[in-house]
Amino acid sequence: MSHTPEGTRRYSYLGPAGTFTEAALKQVPEAAGQTWNPVANLGEALNDVVTGASDAAMIAIENSIDGGVTVAQDALATIPGLRIIGEYLVPVRFVLVVRPGTKLEDVRVVAGHPVAYGQCRAWLDAHAPAHRHLPATSNVQAAADLFAAEKGVDAAIAPPGIQDHYDVDVLAEGIAENPDAVTRFVLVSRTVPVGEPSGADKTSLIVELPEDRSGALLDLLEQFAARGVNLTLLASRPIGDRMGRYRFVIDAEGHVKDERVADALLGVKRFSPRVVFLGSYPRADRIAATTRDVHDNDAFRDARDWLRGVIEGTPDGES
Amino acid sequence: MSHTPEGTRRYSYLGPAGTFTEAALKQVPEAAGQTWNPVANLGEALNDVVTGASDAAMIAIENSIDGGVTVAQDALATIPGLRIIGEYLVPVRFVLVVRPGTKLEDVRVVAGHPVAYGQCRAWLDAHAPAHRHLPATSNVQAAADLFAAEKGVDAAIAPPGIQDHYDVDVLAEGIAENPDAVTRFVLVSRTVPVGEPSGADKTSLIVELPEDRSGALLDLLEQFAARGVNLTLLASRPIGDRMGRYRFVIDAEGHVKDERVADALLGVKRFSPRVVFLGSYPRADRIAATTRDVHDNDAFRDARDWLRGVIEGTPDGES
Amino acid sequence: MSHTPEGTRRYSYLGPAGTFTEAALKQVPEAAGQTWNPVANLGEALNDVVTGASDAAMIAIENSIDGGVTVAQDALATIPGLRIIGEYLVPVRFVLVVRPGTKLEDVRVVAGHPVAYGQCRAWLDAHAPAHRHLPATSNVQAAADLFAAEKGVDAAIAPPGIQDHYDVDVLAEGIAENPDAVTRFVLVSRTVPVGEPSGADKTSLIVELPEDRSGALLDLLEQFAARGVNLTLLASRPIGDRMGRYRFVIDAEGHVKDERVADALLGVKRFSPRVVFLGSYPRADRIAATTRDVHDNDAFRDARDWLRGVIEGTPDGES
Amino acid sequence: MSHTPEGTRRYSYLGPAGTFTEAALKQVPEAAGQTWNPVANLGEALNDVVTGASDAAMIAIENSIDGGVTVAQDALATIPGLRIIGEYLVPVRFVLVVRPGTKLEDVRVVAGHPVAYGQCRAWLDAHAPAHRHLPATSNVQAAADLFAAEKGVDAAIAPPGIQDHYDVDVLAEGIAENPDAVTRFVLVSRTVPVGEPSGADKTSLIVELPEDRSGALLDLLEQFAARGVNLTLLASRPIGDRMGRYRFVIDAEGHVKDERVADALLGVKRFSPRVVFLGSYPRADRIAATTRDVHDNDAFRDARDWLRGVIEGTPDGES
Repeated sequence: MSHTPEGTRRYSYLGPAGTFTEAALKQVPEAAGQTWNPVANLGEALNDVVTGASDAAMIAIENSIDGGVTVAQDALATIPGLRIIGEYLVPVRFVLVVRPGTKLEDVRVVAGHPVAYGQCRAWLDAHAPAHRHLPATSNVQAAADLFAAEKGVDAAIAPPGIQDHYDVDVLAEGIAENPDAVTRFVLVSRTVPVGEPSGADKTSLIVELPEDRSGALLDLLEQFAARGVNLTLLASRPIGDRMGRYRFVIDAEGHVKDERVADALLGVKRFSPRVVFLGSYPRADRIAATTRDVHDNDAFRDARDWLRGVIEGTPDGES
Repeated sequence: MSHTPEGTRRYSYLGPAGTFTEAALKQVPEAAGQTWNPVANLGEALNDVVTGASDAAMIAIENSIDGGVTVAQDALATIPGLRIIGEYLVPVRFVLVVRPGTKLEDVRVVAGHPVAYGQCRAWLDAHAPAHRHLPATSNVQAAADLFAAEKGVDAAIAPPGIQDHYDVDVLAEGIAENPDAVTRFVLVSRTVPVGEPSGADKTSLIVELPEDRSGALLDLLEQFAARGVNLTLLASRPIGDRMGRYRFVIDAEGHVKDERVADALLGVKRFSPRVVFLGSYPRADRIAATTRDVHDNDAFRDARDWLRGVIEGTPDGES
Repeated sequence: MSHTPEGTRRYSYLGPAGTFTEAALKQVPEAAGQTWNPVANLGEALNDVVTGASDAAMIAIENSIDGGVTVAQDALATIPGLRIIGEYLVPVRFVLVVRPGTKLEDVRVVAGHPVAYGQCRAWLDAHAPAHRHLPATSNVQAAADLFAAEKGVDAAIAPPGIQDHYDVDVLAEGIAENPDAVTRFVLVSRTVPVGEPSGADKTSLIVELPEDRSGALLDLLEQFAARGVNLTLLASRPIGDRMGRYRFVIDAEGHVKDERVADALLGVKRFSPRVVFLGSYPRADRIAATTRDVHDNDAFRDARDWLRGVIEGTPDGES
Repeated sequence: MSHTPEGTRRYSYLGPAGTFTEAALKQVPEAAGQTWNPVANLGEALNDVVTGASDAAMIAIENSIDGGVTVAQDALATIPGLRIIGEYLVPVRFVLVVRPGTKLEDVRVVAGHPVAYGQCRAWLDAHAPAHRHLPATSNVQAAADLFAAEKGVDAAIAPPGIQDHYDVDVLAEGIAENPDAVTRFVLVSRTVPVGEPSGADKTSLIVELPEDRSGALLDLLEQFAARGVNLTLLASRPIGDRMGRYRFVIDAEGHVKDERVADALLGVKRFSPRVVFLGSYPRADRIAATTRDVHDNDAFRDARDWLRGVIEGTPDGES
């Protein structure tokens, strides 16, 4: 493993400095003072982890406005040897920046990552109706494009704080449609033993359905419902071999070391032709799963004790 | 334990000799040559087992025409320390017998156990329209009543072979309505360790529902369905404290040492305020449970192995 | 129809006067002042209705201690042309009566209907340990048997008030085990149009399952659960053709003219090879069904209006 | 409505000529000889329909590799007054084109729509390892970019047939990873009455769940499963107000004028706080829905006839 320098850990993230992904990485206490490696895209970030070039990668996995980051979901579903070890939320806020001196009425070409542009379009249509969009590969790159003359960019959609990295003027703040928008990031390492439950955890899975029949998804969901395990995410992604075949990206409340989650996973595993366990990790929102007594660890242990007594014939196979 | 004589086992059954219950006991190879104790009713039979006076009791539990023998179901639900160790089927056939010389046209009073009478009533209405029914406590007692002059009995509904025990003439055979009628008996012992699966087993339970809500029974049935465990019997019995509260008598296909049955029982146990395990024993009909691969013992073992690997972080938490 | 006398209605019930069945019939306002016809058994009572000899029959259908009156359930499942039009509850209390002068210590033979005897046995074992049981065909007949010398009866288990009908002494009151025991009766007529909902109704059905598979009962229960219809009774009865085949006796909360009940019945009817509708009638306990807004009549009407708009293409096929 | 010219119909589609969307529109018999209006993006296409500028718009809705076109799903979920009236499948195949004379070894910058690039990346990595990707707004625009000197594009990922529109050389064909990839398009009009079933139809819905609870999705799926209605698509999309709240994009087999589909929609409508009906239309693959007898139109009609008889009291409320 190439720690750089010796003894430190290395984290890959979608750079350059100033991105939301960097903001997510700043929330990781263990990452402070370690080596941070900005990369150009998700593929590089995960490749760094797979090859051992980095110890972990921070990647965006879901946006409260746009939904799942499908390329990340698909990568986790298909690249072996990865595990999610943490989850982080970053508020999505955007500013409109220009080269010093440019005025709003002069803005014709606006650079922006397509997702960011979608969230800011209503504001731009209202305040710069004549604008045209030029896609950028990241929110920070959009700002950098202001200084690539051949691109003809007049303004850029960028994250707050961008002025610390580029010599730009902020023309407007809070230009995204939804002020509560948030992006969910996960920290991904190579496969490691699962940690201990924190009391407010999430477990991520990729599950394929056993066959192409109406009831299969229902049966899958029953595996969780029957153990009182709530799902916080259920997203379908095409398996890719033909139209109409999907795998499911699932986030379940609880930790694989919680009995009810382990039992649900056993049920899912027996049922599904392919299950990928992506990890059990503390939730970003620190909300503990609500569960009824009948699904807590004691209920599972008591039932096992009872069954053992029943089989051994201790007096009264009765609760 | 009062073995009589020394070293033999003692079996209680609803007597006298000649009853269907005796026919069931004759199907038990281990009972051959042991002490057989005829008793007057179910309560005595089970009491013999509870007190240790007998090693086992043969009791009727269900009839294909009349349904569950509710008093037996209720006894098993409420008397602790009992376990079902075998199941036997006896065809239900009846003959009409009289004292030598009596003719069908002279029959006015017909003795018969109420259940037997119900099954033979159509024949009696057709062939002895003027008859009146006098209830008897067993099918053999009905024949005995022919010789209790004060009872005024002219004919008796009795099992085939009754002429070996009493000096009677058989006026008619096969007088029961349904020629395929069968009674199911179970052999009951004190609580003992569960035996090994025979490959064609049944597991009997008494289950109370957690609360008085619409979905509780559905949830109970899901516990079995989710593991591919078929039920051969589901009967409701009043708990007795108030109208509308029921417990359920359940026979499930399979043995508690089959993984899917054990897992279903664990689920039921966590869910239910009261479960009584009555036993896992070979089925009388020797029909093996049909189950899909996803519910066989290998599937359970594979899933556990997978989960262990997932938690320990062996490469690829993937199926 | 043989109304006797001219112009009055005729009600059959298990007689003689003094039975619990008569107590149930006394709860029917419309029966006051009409002709009451005591009969010897359920078969006669229902036959009177089928043939038109009586307008209605009061029959016991369930006991909170002993469970369903299976012969009544089976009769309703198989005799065409009947309909339940009312439900009544009668507390089950028993007294021990003797011929004047008999003392408790002299009691050897106790007459009693088998069900009544079962409920009073604990008291009798404690207070008349040497007693023997002689079955009687009804609770009132047990008292009558005191005066049939050839039967040798010393005491009888009878309903309170029996001393109004027979010259007996009451040795003890409240001898049944459970002071809250109650028997549920239904009033049965020939098939008539269903009445209007009272606001607290019950609907009774007999349903056969489509095939002999694990999930069929689950599917049946889903039909009710999906519409928010609670069941107050679910009892299995053998169909009788072979062991393991059952039909289900179902009481559902609500009236067939309640939209959710009608919709559930449509679902059951499509699913089941045989459904018998036994009636919608006011509940004896006058407890209104609890249901959520999404299952009330308005929700059904709104959904139909919406669907019509959707198909016709009125602006916005949206709620 | 601005038909151009007088009397013809106007279809909007993602242009320019040569796109997969145009290929989809070529499959619409009614569109032949009408006015085709190439637009720059989905928003324009749908806006044309909403305003009446066009009669219909062809839009991409799902790709067998990349999954749902989320922006299209979200637009259909939120823009009122639209209805899907047809479905079309277009195979996704790509060629690599260059200005005449350019050789593969000279390719440095490859223009391509991001989705197309994703599907061709494996080929490009293998055959032009030094390449860099420049995003384009459509597959045809990528080819056009070859002739915008300031962009510095050496090669473009484009659909087959692009050489009919641009003076390009085809360096390689079939460069997409999956040769069976297909894109699903839908033709969208303003809200109109639903047409008649073709026998092989699909019904599209947007459904929000009633509350944030584990079982709500299960309950939704039950509405379809209980009526034997298979789903060909179930995709979750964020509602956008906060993380963890989703609406579901559903394609169900069958037509709203099929009884089982109508009944399922009634159930969904009662259950859900918001349902958008997007249309019932012939399936592109012409595969008829498979359904069991118990869910066909006759079963629904028979059940209604039975229920009417039951309520009216015609002899025998029995199947």
